[in-house]
Amino acid sequence: MGVRVAIIGASGYTGGELLRILSLHREVEVIAATSREYAGKPITHVHPHLRGFYANMRFMDVDLDKILRADAVFLSLPAGVSLQYTPRILESGLKVVDLGPDYRLKNAEDYVRWYGFEHPQPDLLKKVVYGMPELHREELKSAELIASPGCNSTAAILALIPAVKEKLIDLDHIAIDVKVGSSEAGRKPTAGSHHPERDNVIRPYEASGHRHVAEVEQELSALAGRWLKIAFTPHAVGCIRGALATAHTWLVEGADEKAIVRAFASCYGKEPFIRIVRGPPVGYPDPKYVVGSNFADVGFAYDERVGRAAFMAAIDNLMKGAAGQAVQAFNIVMGFDEREGLLTPPLKPA
Amino acid sequence: MGVRVAIIGASGYTGGELLRILSLHREVEVIAATSREYAGKPITHVHPHLRGFYANMRFMDVDLDKILRADAVFLSLPAGVSLQYTPRILESGLKVVDLGPDYRLKNAEDYVRWYGFEHPQPDLLKKVVYGMPELHREELKSAELIASPGCNSTAAILALIPAVKEKLIDLDHIAIDVKVGSSEAGRKPTAGSHHPERDNVIRPYEASGHRHVAEVEQELSALAGRWLKIAFTPHAVGCIRGALATAHTWLVEGADEKAIVRAFASCYGKEPFIRIVRGPPVGYPDPKYVVGSNFADVGFAYDERVGRAAFMAAIDNLMKGAAGQAVQAFNIVMGFDEREGLLTPPLKPA
Amino acid sequence: MGVRVAIIGASGYTGGELLRILSLHREVEVIAATSREYAGKPITHVHPHLRGFYANMRFMDVDLDKILRADAVFLSLPAGVSLQYTPRILESGLKVVDLGPDYRLKNAEDYVRWYGFEHPQPDLLKKVVYGMPELHREELKSAELIASPGCNSTAAILALIPAVKEKLIDLDHIAIDVKVGSSEAGRKPTAGSHHPERDNVIRPYEASGHRHVAEVEQELSALAGRWLKIAFTPHAVGCIRGALATAHTWLVEGADEKAIVRAFASCYGKEPFIRIVRGPPVGYPDPKYVVGSNFADVGFAYDERVGRAAFMAAIDNLMKGAAGQAVQAFNIVMGFDEREGLLTPPLKPA
Amino acid sequence: MGVRVAIIGASGYTGGELLRILSLHREVEVIAATSREYAGKPITHVHPHLRGFYANMRFMDVDLDKILRADAVFLSLPAGVSLQYTPRILESGLKVVDLGPDYRLKNAEDYVRWYGFEHPQPDLLKKVVYGMPELHREELKSAELIASPGCNSTAAILALIPAVKEKLIDLDHIAIDVKVGSSEAGRKPTAGSHHPERDNVIRPYEASGHRHVAEVEQELSALAGRWLKIAFTPHAVGCIRGALATAHTWLVEGADEKAIVRAFASCYGKEPFIRIVRGPPVGYPDPKYVVGSNFADVGFAYDERVGRAAFMAAIDNLMKGAAGQAVQAFNIVMGFDEREGLLTPPLKPA
Repeated sequence: MGVRVAIIGASGYTGGELLRILSLHREVEVIAATSREYAGKPITHVHPHLRGFYANMRFMDVDLDKILRADAVFLSLPAGVSLQYTPRILESGLKVVDLGPDYRLKNAEDYVRWYGFEHPQPDLLKKVVYGMPELHREELKSAELIASPGCNSTAAILALIPAVKEKLIDLDHIAIDVKVGSSEAGRKPTAGSHHPERDNVIRPYEASGHRHVAEVEQELSALAGRWLKIAFTPHAVGCIRGALATAHTWLVEGADEKAIVRAFASCYGKEPFIRIVRGPPVGYPDPKYVVGSNFADVGFAYDERVGRAAFMAAIDNLMKGAAGQAVQAFNIVMGFDEREGLLTPPLKPA
Repeated sequence: MGVRVAIIGASGYTGGELLRILSLHREVEVIAATSREYAGKPITHVHPHLRGFYANMRFMDVDLDKILRADAVFLSLPAGVSLQYTPRILESGLKVVDLGPDYRLKNAEDYVRWYGFEHPQPDLLKKVVYGMPELHREELKSAELIASPGCNSTAAILALIPAVKEKLIDLDHIAIDVKVGSSEAGRKPTAGSHHPERDNVIRPYEASGHRHVAEVEQELSALAGRWLKIAFTPHAVGCIRGALATAHTWLVEGADEKAIVRAFASCYGKEPFIRIVRGPPVGYPDPKYVVGSNFADVGFAYDERVGRAAFMAAIDNLMKGAAGQAVQAFNIVMGFDEREGLLTPPLKPA
Repeated sequence: MGVRVAIIGASGYTGGELLRILSLHREVEVIAATSREYAGKPITHVHPHLRGFYANMRFMDVDLDKILRADAVFLSLPAGVSLQYTPRILESGLKVVDLGPDYRLKNAEDYVRWYGFEHPQPDLLKKVVYGMPELHREELKSAELIASPGCNSTAAILALIPAVKEKLIDLDHIAIDVKVGSSEAGRKPTAGSHHPERDNVIRPYEASGHRHVAEVEQELSALAGRWLKIAFTPHAVGCIRGALATAHTWLVEGADEKAIVRAFASCYGKEPFIRIVRGPPVGYPDPKYVVGSNFADVGFAYDERVGRAAFMAAIDNLMKGAAGQAVQAFNIVMGFDEREGLLTPPLKPA
Repeated sequence: MGVRVAIIGASGYTGGELLRILSLHREVEVIAATSREYAGKPITHVHPHLRGFYANMRFMDVDLDKILRADAVFLSLPAGVSLQYTPRILESGLKVVDLGPDYRLKNAEDYVRWYGFEHPQPDLLKKVVYGMPELHREELKSAELIASPGCNSTAAILALIPAVKEKLIDLDHIAIDVKVGSSEAGRKPTAGSHHPERDNVIRPYEASGHRHVAEVEQELSALAGRWLKIAFTPHAVGCIRGALATAHTWLVEGADEKAIVRAFASCYGKEPFIRIVRGPPVGYPDPKYVVGSNFADVGFAYDERVGRAAFMAAIDNLMKGAAGQAVQAFNIVMGFDEREGLLTPPLKPA
C-alpha cells in the first residue's frame, strides 16, 4: 500500500488541503482523519469539493490507538492543542509534522511572550526541525518532529533569505508588509470574515506585532548571525488564497542590482519550489500565479535613487504557506521525491 | 514518450488549461503549441503560472508540417478559424478535437443563422461527433473529428439530460437561466471585461438568444425525439471560473421527486465526472465546488406546490466546459483511461 | 427639527442604511436607534463608516416611552419580532414602517404556511398597506402601518408589473430566477457567509420555495385578477449589494416587442425611481448601475423565435430592496417630496 | 443657477465622479462636459448609473468658446494634456482645478525625470497651489490654478503629516507601501485590468519608483524642512475603490504612543474630512469604511518592541484621492462651505 498517514484536525482549510494533496500522492494512504466537531460525518460533509474522493471515509474523534497504526501524523490544530498529542505519538516512533505554532520557536520563554502560555515540553523544542526545506533540508532528513512554518512567516522568510544570507542589507531597518487572503484566518466564521465585511477590505491587523514575527526573527537571525528586530505588519486584502510579503530594506554600501540577482540565483537556483521572477511580462511576484500550488515566486524591486530594495515572495497561503510545505517536508523525512503529490501546476485564471 | 499532441491556439485561457492538464497526463507529449500573436515567445510569457513547466517551449506560428508530426491535434480558435485547418489535418490521419463552434451543429444551414457564415464543409458535419461523453461515449471511441461542446451548452445539457430522457417535463416550457464567470469571455480585454466594470455585475447578455442554444436544442431534441425550442438567457456574474445552468421546467402528470431521483441515478450513476448533489450540507450544485476540476455537479429543486422543478448543473467553464471535457473525449478516442490527466480534485476554498 | 423618527433594530445592514439615508433627509431628526445587542455602544461601534455622523448617539434598548416621543417608527427586525411592538406604537398615533415580513401577507393563514407561526393580529393585516409606491401610492398617502416589501420580492414584482397588468404573458408559466449579493442575508455571520465560502459562489438556495414568493404571488395575483402560482428560485452570487430578478415568461398571442415597450412606458414612465433600460450601451438592467441608490432599473429581452420574453429588474437590495423603499413610502405617508433623502446618484464603479 | 462649471475630460472615472458629486452641489451648474471619444453621445452612454441625472446633456468636444462661459473648469486628462488648455483658461479669468499631474511639481526639471517631458510653462508652476486643504487651505483661498493631488500621493501624505510635522520619526528610513483598487488605473481596458487577470491579485507595480513619490517627497520635504528620499511601493489589490498607505517608520528618541496621538489630534482635530481611527471595534484605517465619500481615515500602529510605527491613511481613490478632494479645494477657492456636495456618508457594506 504505502506509508500510512493520519491527520489530526482534518476539518479546517489546511486539513482539507492535506486531504486534497494526499489524494494525489502515490506513496501514501490516509488511514484516519479526525475532527472533534464532525466526528462520524463523512469527509465530504465538510469538504464537498472532495466528493468522489475518500468516498467511504468519515471523520473520527481523536483515538490514539487507531492513529498510532500510522507511520506519520500531520497535526493541524489551534495553538496549544498539538502539545497534548505530540509526545505520545513521538514515543511510539511515528514521525510528526505539526502545522500549528506549538513547536516553531526554539526558546521556551518565547511562548509566554507571543502565545501566552508556558511551554510544557522545552526538551522537545530542542529536537524539533523548523520545516522549511530551503533552510533546513539536511536536518529534515533525520527529523522526527517537524514544526511547519506559518504562512505569513513563510512568505517573509523566503523574501529575505538571499538578502540576509549574502549580507546585502541594513539589518536594523527591515519592515515587512504582508498582504493576505481570507482563507488565512481559517474555516471558522467571525464578524470580520463575514462576506459583506471582509470583501473589498484593505485592512491592517495585529499591525503592531503579529505572532509570526517571532519565527521570522528566529530564522533570519540565525542566518544573519546576530539578533534582528523586524517590523511586521500584515493586511487582509480581497482574495481568498494568497500571501505576498514585501520586505522594505535599505542596501549596504556596495550592494547593487547585480549582487541581488546573484544572491537569488545562489540561494534558490536549485530549489524545486522556488521560482525567481524577473519580468517582463510579469515583473514581480504575485500570488495570483501560484494559486493551488506549492510554488513560492520570489523577486525584488531595486530603487537605486533611494538606495533601497523591496524583496517579495508570493505564496498560496494554504499550500507553500501550510499544507504544501508540510507535505514537502514530510517527503524529505520519508525519503520520497520531495515533489511527490505536489507537482500540480497553479490554477489560472482563478 | 507517448502520444504526440499539438495545440493550435494555445495562448488563450482554454489553451492554457489544455497545457496545464496535459502536463499531468502520463500518456501524452505536447510537441507544438501555436499562437499567431505570441509566436517565438516562451509559453510562460503568456502563462506565467506555468513557469517550471514546458520550460524550453515557445509558441510557434501554425506550421502544418510540424503539426502533422503529431498523433492528435486540439484546436482552440475563434469561430470560423478551425475550418482552415481541420480538413488537411484529418486527411493526414490525425485525430482532431475542436474546442470551437465550427463543427458543433449538424445542419450546415444553422451556421448561417447562428454564426453568420455558410459552412463550407457540410460533409464533415456528418461525421463529426459532439464531444460530450455522457451522450456520445460509444461514437467517440471511433471518432476522427470531435466537436467539443460550449461551456454554457455543457451546463445546460447536463442539467436536463435526465428530465428529457425520462420524459418528466413539459417540453414546451423550458427556460434555461445560466450564470457564468468572467473567464468565459476569453483572454482578450474589452470594455465589458475591465475589472471595475466587470466585478460585481449581475449582467444579462445575449439574453434573447445566445448562440449556444443551438447546440442545446440539437442535443436535447435528439434525446426527446422531437424538436424543442428552448428559452436561454445567460448572465455574467462576479467570479472568474464557474457556470451554473438553472433549467426551469414544469413537470408532467405523474412525475415526482422520486422519479427525478431515479432519472438522475440511471443517467449519471456510472459517469466518472458527474456528481449528483443531494444536500445537506450543500443542497444544490454550485460551481464553487468544482473549480479547477473536470467534474459537473448536478441536482434539482422540486417544488410540489407549483408542479415544477429546477434542474441544475455546475461546472468549471474552462474545464468540463472546455479543456477538461476535450481531454476526456480525447482519452476515449485514444483508448486511454477516460480520467487520465483529469483526476485532480477541485480547489477549495478558491 | 423636523419630524422625529425612531428606528427599532438599527444595528443591522438595513438599520445602517436607514441611518445613512436619514442623515441626508432634510425633514427628519432621528431621536432613537435601538439594538438589544449593542445597547449603550456608540452608533459608530457597529457602523464605523458613519463616524462623523450621529456623533454623540448611542444604541439604546427598546424603551417604548422614549420611542413614543417620535412621530414615526421604522422597524427592522427578524420575522415575528415586530409583532411585539407594532400595536402599541400604532395606538399611540405614530406611523409605522415595518421592514420585516410580519405584516406583508394579507391572509393570516399564510403566516402558518410560509413563516411557521399563527398571526396574532389578523385585524391589523386588513389595514396594512404593502409599501411599494409603484403599486399602492394612493393608499400609502393615508396609511398608518406600512409593510415594506422584501428585496427579492421587490425585484420580482417590479420586473413583472407591466407584463401582468397589460396581460402580455401566459400566467401559468412564470419562472422567476433571482440573483443576489451577500448583504441580503444580513449582518450575522454564518458558515455560508464566511468569506472563503461565500465569495465566488453561484449558489441556489431555498430553491423550491423561498418565502418571498408569497408576497410576489399576492401582489401579482391582485394585478392579474386571478390567483397565480409562480416558480421562484434565488441564487447567491458574488457581490455584496445587488439583486436581479429575471422572470422567464411565454408571450400570449399578439404580444410583441412593441406591446412590451408600451407596457413599460405606461406603467413606469412617471415613476421617480424606475429607470427603463433599453441599450445600447447597456442592454439590460444590472444592479451594478444602481448601487447605493433607490433606483430600480427595469427592462426585458424579447425572443421572437421562441415566443417568450425575460423581464428583468435590478435593484440595490439594501436600498430599493429595503431601506430606500421604506423611506420612499414614509415620504409619501408624511406628505414629503417622495424623493427626499433619496436623490443620491448610484455609485460607480463599485 | 449658481456658479457655472465645465469639465474637460468627463468620460473617465474621475470625470464621472465629478458629475456625480456636482449633481449634489447646491451652488453649481455644470454647463459643459467634454470627451473627445464620446463627443455627441449622451452622458449616460458612458455613465449609465447617471441615468435620470444630466438627462439632456451630451458630451461635447473641447470648444473653448463654450467652456470660457464657465466660472471654473475642472480638467481630468492624461499627463501632458492639461498644458494645452490651462494658460488660455487662466487668462480668461476662470479658476482651474487640474486633476492630472501637469502642475503638481514645483520644479520644472522634475517633469523631465518623472514624466519624461520638458515643462513648457515653468512660470505657471510658481503660482499653482497643491490642492490638499490639510496642507494649503490658506493659499487655496486666493488660488487661481490648483493642482489636485494624485491618489497614492494623497494617502501617503495624509498618513505622514503628523509624524513629519511633529518630528517624531527618523526621516532617513521611510518606506511607504500602498495598496490600491482597480479603479485607480482609469477607465481604459488593458491586459492587466482584464477581470480574470486583475481579480484576486496582490500585484506590486512600478515598485522601484512610482511617479507619485515625487509629489510625496515635495510636500513632506517642505514640512520637514529638508529634502527627503522616500521608498514607495504600490500594490494592486482585489477591490475596485480604495487606497491604503502604510508608511513604515522608525521613531526618534522620545517619541512614543502619546506623542503620536497628540500629533494626530493637533494636525487633524479640526479637519472636516479627516477621521482619526483608534479602535476598537475597528483598529486601523481601512478604505472599506470610506467608499463613495471624501473622508480620509487615518491612524497608526505603534510597535514599542521594535521602536517603530506604521502610519496609515485610507481613502476612496476616486474621491479624496481625486474628484472629492478637487471639489473640496474648489469649494475653498470659491468661498463655499468646504463640505458642499461632499457630505454623503460612505456606503457600507460595499
